[in-house]
Amino acid sequence: MKTVTAAILVIGDEVLSGRTQDANTQVLAKALGAVGVQMCESRAIADDEDTIIAALNEMRGRFDYVFTSGGIGPTHDDITAEAVGKAFGVPVTIRDDARALLEAHYGDQINEGRLRMARIPDGASLIPNPVSIAPGFRIGNVFVMAGVPKIFAVMLDAAVPALDNGARIEEVSFACPHGEGVLSAPLSAVAEKHPAVSIGSYPRMKVGGGFEVTIVARSADAAALAAAEADLRAMLAAL
Amino acid sequence: MKTVTAAILVIGDEVLSGRTQDANTQVLAKALGAVGVQMCESRAIADDEDTIIAALNEMRGRFDYVFTSGGIGPTHDDITAEAVGKAFGVPVTIRDDARALLEAHYGDQINEGRLRMARIPDGASLIPNPVSIAPGFRIGNVFVMAGVPKIFAVMLDAAVPALDNGARIEEVSFACPHGEGVLSAPLSAVAEKHPAVSIGSYPRMKVGGGFEVTIVARSADAAALAAAEADLRAMLAAL
Repeated sequence: MKTVTAAILVIGDEVLSGRTQDANTQVLAKALGAVGVQMCESRAIADDEDTIIAALNEMRGRFDYVFTSGGIGPTHDDITAEAVGKAFGVPVTIRDDARALLEAHYGDQINEGRLRMARIPDGASLIPNPVSIAPGFRIGNVFVMAGVPKIFAVMLDAAVPALDNGARIEEVSFACPHGEGVLSAPLSAVAEKHPAVSIGSYPRMKVGGGFEVTIVARSADAAALAAAEADLRAMLAAL
Repeated sequence: MKTVTAAILVIGDEVLSGRTQDANTQVLAKALGAVGVQMCESRAIADDEDTIIAALNEMRGRFDYVFTSGGIGPTHDDITAEAVGKAFGVPVTIRDDARALLEAHYGDQINEGRLRMARIPDGASLIPNPVSIAPGFRIGNVFVMAGVPKIFAVMLDAAVPALDNGARIEEVSFACPHGEGVLSAPLSAVAEKHPAVSIGSYPRMKVGGGFEVTIVARSADAAALAAAEADLRAMLAAL
C-alpha cells in the first residue's frame, strides 16, 4: 500500500512567544495515524504573511496534505485566509455560502469583523464548524482550520473522511526497566534484523532520578512487526 | 537595538506519531524572550538523516541561532550528532573531552552504547549536562541539546549566557469579556495607530460554551507599548 504524507503548519505568535503550547499537532498526528496518513512535519511560524506564504508553498509541494491551524478569526491579526489565497495565486473574497452561515448564526449581531470569517479563497470548499459556525476551508491539498483546539478537532472530524488512506502504521510498545546505555547494543541488533520496522527508545526521567525507557516498534507490515516484537521480548527477557 | 532571531528543530518520531507532546519549544521561547532573542520558528521532524540535514542547513542560514532537541542518546535511533556533522561537512568522532566525562560518570559501566554519547562533530564545544552528564554541543550557530525536558532545560541554562542579546520584547496582556467579533473593529483601529506594537487577540473556549479573549500587546519600544496599552484600556472601557 502506498505511503500518504502530511504536515501541519501552526500559525500564530502565541506559540512562538511561549504563551501557549501547541496541542493540535498531537491531535492531528493521532487522527492521521488511524487512517494511515503519516505525519512528517510540524512547523510553527509567526503571523507574518510572507512567512506563511513561503512555508505553505514549500510544504504543500513536499507532502500529500498540509493542515494549517490558527489565524482565521475576525480580528486584524487573523491573516491566514489572505496568505493562503496569495500562496495559491487566487483572490480571497467574502463568499456567499460562508456569509449565509454566519448571518444565520449571528442574526443582527453580524458585523464587519465577523464577516471577515467568510473570506474564502476562490476554488476552496468549506470545512464545517459545528462549534462556532465560522468555517475552515480546503483548497487543493491544504486544509485551513482554526487554532482553538476544540474547533480544530471538529474541523478535523469533517476533513479526515476526505483523505486518501495509506498503509496504516501499527505500533507496539514496551515499558523497560533498563537504561538506554544497557539497551543500546541488543536493540541495535534487533533493529538491524528488522529493516521494515522502525524501532525507537524513549527515555523519560523518573521522579527521584534515573530514567525509564519505553521501546516502541512501528511498521505498516503486520508480519514484520510481530517478528520484531518477538525478538524484542526475547531480548528484554535475556537482559 | 538589533533583532536577534532563533528557531528550534525538534528531532524525533515520537512527537510526529502523537506519542508525546513537544514541551521544549515553550521552555526555549520563554528563556529566549527574557534575553531579547526572538523565536521565529519551531519545526518537528522525523529521525531521518537527510531530513535533519536539509532542515538544519536551511534554518541555520535563516536564523541567528538554531537549537535542536532530541536524538543524542546512546541507541541506534539517536542520529542527530552524525547528521549535524554532515550538515556542517565535518567528521564526527568520539572525542576525548566528552569520553572523559562519561568514563568518570559510568566507571566500569561504560560501554559502546554509552560512548556513542561522546560523538562530537569536529570544532564543536561541549554544553554541560549536570543531570545525566552526557553533553550537548555547540557548533557554529547551532546548539545541539537533549530531548528529555529536564536535560534540555539544564543545557539551555548553560547555553543562554553565550547568546548575543537583542532588544527585549515587553508584553502586556488583558483578559477581556468581549468576543473577537465585537473587538475586531476597535482593535484594528488601535493596531493601526501603533505600528511599533504587535497586538494580538487569543480566544479560548470557556467551559460551558462561549469564548474568553486575551488581548496581548508586544513591543521592544517601551514608550510605544505604554501608549498602545493606554489606548487599549480606553477602548475596553468604552465597549
